[in-house]
Amino acid sequence: MGKVICAGLGPGDPELMSVKSWRALQGAKHIAYFRKAGRKGQARAIVDDLLPEGVIEHAMEYPVTTEIHFSDPEYNRILSAFYDQWADTLAEIAQSEDVVVPCEGDPFLYGSFMHLYTRLQGRAEVEVIPGITGMSGCWTATGQPITWGDDVLTVAMATLPEDELTRRIADTDALVVMKIGRNLPKLRRALEAAGKFDAAWLVERGTMPKQTVQKLADVEGEVPYFSIVLVHGQGRRP
Amino acid sequence: MGKVICAGLGPGDPELMSVKSWRALQGAKHIAYFRKAGRKGQARAIVDDLLPEGVIEHAMEYPVTTEIHFSDPEYNRILSAFYDQWADTLAEIAQSEDVVVPCEGDPFLYGSFMHLYTRLQGRAEVEVIPGITGMSGCWTATGQPITWGDDVLTVAMATLPEDELTRRIADTDALVVMKIGRNLPKLRRALEAAGKFDAAWLVERGTMPKQTVQKLADVEGEVPYFSIVLVHGQGRRP
Ligand SMILES: C[S@@+](CC[C@H](N)C(=O)[O-])C[C@H]1O[C@@H](n2cnc3c(N)ncnc32)[C@H](O)[C@@H]1O
Ligand SMILES: C[S@@+](CC[C@H](N)C(=O)[O-])C[C@H]1O[C@@H](n2cnc3c(N)ncnc32)[C@H](O)[C@@H]1O
Repeated sequence: MGKVICAGLGPGDPELMSVKSWRALQGAKHIAYFRKAGRKGQARAIVDDLLPEGVIEHAMEYPVTTEIHFSDPEYNRILSAFYDQWADTLAEIAQSEDVVVPCEGDPFLYGSFMHLYTRLQGRAEVEVIPGITGMSGCWTATGQPITWGDDVLTVAMATLPEDELTRRIADTDALVVMKIGRNLPKLRRALEAAGKFDAAWLVERGTMPKQTVQKLADVEGEVPYFSIVLVHGQGRRP
Repeated sequence: MGKVICAGLGPGDPELMSVKSWRALQGAKHIAYFRKAGRKGQARAIVDDLLPEGVIEHAMEYPVTTEIHFSDPEYNRILSAFYDQWADTLAEIAQSEDVVVPCEGDPFLYGSFMHLYTRLQGRAEVEVIPGITGMSGCWTATGQPITWGDDVLTVAMATLPEDELTRRIADTDALVVMKIGRNLPKLRRALEAAGKFDAAWLVERGTMPKQTVQKLADVEGEVPYFSIVLVHGQGRRP
């Protein structure tokens, strides 16, 4: 009997992977990773220099990404069938051998592996290795602590409605916003309405080769998928 | 010229340290770590098997912990002098050699190193290596993802006033509460008032040797310093 091992990869720099994930990958017979069709895939890129020769690769290509909106029931149906099918495949491999699933950041924080994880319950042994989150990589890149003393930290997705974003941004000490992409104009308006636009930072590709760190006010144009907006807490400090 | 390297250690299991921190520690000439007077110190314990022979150790012993309340100005004065003094010492070592400061979890998330970090600006080169947070270690230990879809995650300290805790617990999808200790009775009341007591988990010493994972409702007595309360988000999932 094998098992399914989800290896958290951390924010992007391969050296920020845990020793445990590193070893799991170096010893892998099978790896399976998510990617957009036609792309190499970020998880696959991070583990490039680690994989042993002869490893068997399974690319799990998303059937939809942004072509259909997630409120469309068709989006749910297609994605759900995709996860069902890959859960079947991984469960089958794990009947005899281990399969390692490298995942960006920390798998249990808004990760895609969770959809396989729930489907694999009772069908295969599953081990999840946590990872450094993308947000930790990003706030470290700004060179400023994210929280002090008893600061409250709110982590929100830019996909939320504008009024909810505004309310939550106004009502927190420290802020992390993920999944930005085409929601950037909405997020800017929410930060302005909450009076925090000038305190906001944007980190693109934190700890990856083309990392950028800027005040959000200085950002022009579009931002890549791996982008995080941060507002640092300013709490009590001796 | 040397530098001060703060090495995030992750939640406790040494294998959950990043490869980068691991290497920094294995090559260390000097290490400096925080601890309570008379204790070994958790950071020091995590790196036990990694340190090279002949490493020079600097134990930074807190002058106060819970004997004085943090609202007392005397608390601030004593702690501030302590950080000033150790910043001087580390800056002096870094004139000629590297000094590695191992820190639990991710250093920039409510970590003590931040107080040295600000004091070292302009006086020594400082590098911070992020780490897996204690909270990632804890939610992974529960075997359930912490956030799905566009769940909002709130991270709060149990040191907050009870009414503020209650309000924030009621108004979030996923919750992490840290710094519990003697605030546990207050936190219980806040969770109950917010209608989330039965959904709350307590993880003690996540990923450490004596880890426990329980529903908070089943917990009796006191909890150790390394304890986190979690409520998992239940958001959108295909
Ligand atoms: C589906 S979530 C996955 C989060 C991941 N499990 C983690 O722990 O970081 C994807 C979002 O994470 C953020 N993200 C993750 N890593 C990042 C990085 N290195 N730099 C910038 N943003 C990152 C982006 O906001 C992106 O939209
Ligand atoms: C001063 S904060 C430091 C947090 C740390 N920098 C991090 O990233 O996890 C200390 C609090 O972290 C929490 N904590 C950190 N590691 C933990 C673990 N392994 N298990 C349980 N709680 C932990 C506890 O709530 C503790 O009171």
